Amino acid sequence: MADVAGEVDRAFDALLPVPDDPRADLYEAMRYAAMAGGKRLRPLLVRAVADLFAVDRVASTRVGAAIEAIHVYSLIHDDLPAMDDDALRRGKPTVHVRYGEATAILAGDCLHALAFEWLAHPDTHPDPFVRAELVLDLARAAGPSGMAGGQAMDLAAETASFDLPTVTRLQQMKTGALIGASVEAGAILGRVPPEGRLGLRGYAHDLGLAFQIVDDLLDAHGDEGKVGKKLRKDADAGKETFLTLLGPDRARAQSRMLVDQAIQHLHSFGSEADILRELARFVLERDR
Amino acid sequence: MADVAGEVDRAFDALLPVPDDPRADLYEAMRYAAMAGGKRLRPLLVRAVADLFAVDRVASTRVGAAIEAIHVYSLIHDDLPAMDDDALRRGKPTVHVRYGEATAILAGDCLHALAFEWLAHPDTHPDPFVRAELVLDLARAAGPSGMAGGQAMDLAAETASFDLPTVTRLQQMKTGALIGASVEAGAILGRVPPEGRLGLRGYAHDLGLAFQIVDDLLDAHGDEGKVGKKLRKDADAGKETFLTLLGPDRARAQSRMLVDQAIQHLHSFGSEADILRELARFVLERDR
Repeated sequence: MADVAGEVDRAFDALLPVPDDPRADLYEAMRYAAMAGGKRLRPLLVRAVADLFAVDRVASTRVGAAIEAIHVYSLIHDDLPAMDDDALRRGKPTVHVRYGEATAILAGDCLHALAFEWLAHPDTHPDPFVRAELVLDLARAAGPSGMAGGQAMDLAAETASFDLPTVTRLQQMKTGALIGASVEAGAILGRVPPEGRLGLRGYAHDLGLAFQIVDDLLDAHGDEGKVGKKLRKDADAGKETFLTLLGPDRARAQSRMLVDQAIQHLHSFGSEADILRELARFVLERDR
Repeated sequence: MADVAGEVDRAFDALLPVPDDPRADLYEAMRYAAMAGGKRLRPLLVRAVADLFAVDRVASTRVGAAIEAIHVYSLIHDDLPAMDDDALRRGKPTVHVRYGEATAILAGDCLHALAFEWLAHPDTHPDPFVRAELVLDLARAAGPSGMAGGQAMDLAAETASFDLPTVTRLQQMKTGALIGASVEAGAILGRVPPEGRLGLRGYAHDLGLAFQIVDDLLDAHGDEGKVGKKLRKDADAGKETFLTLLGPDRARAQSRMLVDQAIQHLHSFGSEADILRELARFVLERDR
């Protein structure tokens, strides 16, 4: 994990040089958000899946950075006063607190565009078919049928009372879509035909849900100092979550079951997929 | 113009069906912004250039809609309270006034992602090389080296005093980049090799600057009822513009000179480029 995190940081450092002009603040804000640490779960998934198919690591690192850029932009916009209004992220002031709201909006917008620029660039992969597939994969996962659509459902959750299938769909979009796109991107780089991706997709699906249930548990019972952001927000907003709908014991059991199921989806792979198995267990045991 | 505007509206109508779930508001907000009229200058440029090379119109309409989606998302975010804080756009309440700030931010983000999804989709063009080139073209024009970078410079213009070269660069990024990307996209669809695009690029460059000078003149002397948005904002913000730096007479002369120059760049084309010539004249004479 530390290896990939270091490589993602180096990729952002190279891809986001601060210009000597009035945009310096914009680039500083992007770097501040993109290089603030974080688990780098998405780049790690791209890398681990791409490694199964002996993909060149320059490609998997660039693709991982692009998907992480989408994740980072969503956090910047999600933290804005009009959205979650968060002042702290990973133990540091959020981008709008540090650089102002206007720059935060634009820094998010810029990371959003850059992600697609990086994916479509010939430096990422020589085959334009692979590049176009990567863009399509990520754009779908980021847009109204994926992450941003899930955030819109999350807004609606503040005034409506969702049942378990609706909360599951919401979370599958809000967090699951980008986790799924990361696994899919690794398979695209590995030139795995769609019919060969079913096991990996099943893995990503179950991993994404388990990740979100653990997130709900951390929000309710986690340590603010460790997690580095404001917690108990779901309860304060009166939102239905896996936790409110299942209770803590069933939620914990469900997350364990999903991780087991995720690992079973990898049965056709040998020890080369052990990192993906360990990653699934890490998701279950994480405390931040 | 009315033909293309109608086709862009029909494309948005087909591409943005309102779902029967909690995202209905998000989609309504996207449709409200995307189908609010407007000059559709960018789709018109894509179409007019693509027509020079007998490109299938389904392709040029989809690409025009994608570039217009980027333009529309930038207007939504630009109107937000933290940015320009505008309550009126094309004579109607802005998206955040109508749907709330959080939905406005997400609707912008969704149109941003959808633009790239549409470009990368095989329905747009059968050749993945063309799709990847279109994505790269638009992502560069939308990001920190293009439109969003220009907006960041515009923020800085409120506290700094820019000279003419800096204002020119700012406007070349803020408005010119997307106009350039529209012309470039038409050439990509027409499979014009980069060395054959110089005349068209020159046209786009001069057209973009002329467009912005006329915008400055309209901001200072236009009719709010006709333009449909709040004017005199540059003067209120104390920003340097082409108008403050050149004065109205030189600004008007400069815009005329640029339009002549834009038309001269088309010398290698015959009457098939007359629409591009008329478009340049329209930019000069527009009153909204």
